[in-house]
Amino acid sequence: MEIANLFAARLEPKREEIFETLLETGRVRLERIISTGQSTPAGEWYDQERNEWVALLSGSAGLLFEGEPEPRVMKPGDYLIIPAHLRHRVEWTDPDHETVWLALHY
Amino acid sequence: MEIANLFAARLEPKREEIFETLLETGRVRLERIISTGQSTPAGEWYDQERNEWVALLSGSAGLLFEGEPEPRVMKPGDYLIIPAHLRHRVEWTDPDHETVWLALHY
Repeated sequence: MEIANLFAARLEPKREEIFETLLETGRVRLERIISTGQSTPAGEWYDQERNEWVALLSGSAGLLFEGEPEPRVMKPGDYLIIPAHLRHRVEWTDPDHETVWLALHY
Repeated sequence: MEIANLFAARLEPKREEIFETLLETGRVRLERIISTGQSTPAGEWYDQERNEWVALLSGSAGLLFEGEPEPRVMKPGDYLIIPAHLRHRVEWTDPDHETVWLALHY
């Protein structure tokens, strides 16, 4: 039973987003994601089998849902539920600061 | 699908801790707790049926586990897993700032 930290510094800047599973039970998966300016590639959408509760803990991001005209701006502490199969994409993340997400897939 | 905020200000100072269920599926429960200086009453312990993944998002707290000599100090971003039935108590929380916890019972 060790304490870890959601904001723990990374050893080096990364060119890719970092996906880290914090907890997996078969029923749910809790994931930390660290973005450093990345976005979902042009024309691609997430289309997930499970519902997702997602919070942005640091940084900022624009989250676009299919059918909506503009991305929703997420700031620290913001959370929402993305229903399964609701297509969405990350339009942008803060290029200057780490954006830390916490996502619960259930 | 509305955005809410984990750090949203409360309307007034509270004398009791605030427990808010963010998500409940029958299999898991995700809960936000806001402490403002409270601690677990003297002599009482939490003894829970389920495992708990818990993170401290703001403020600070001392978390004592049965059999350990000193409370573990939790600072923002710190998280750990408390196995079911491991008796524990909150020895103290920051009296000057809101301590926001995120707890996943699974």
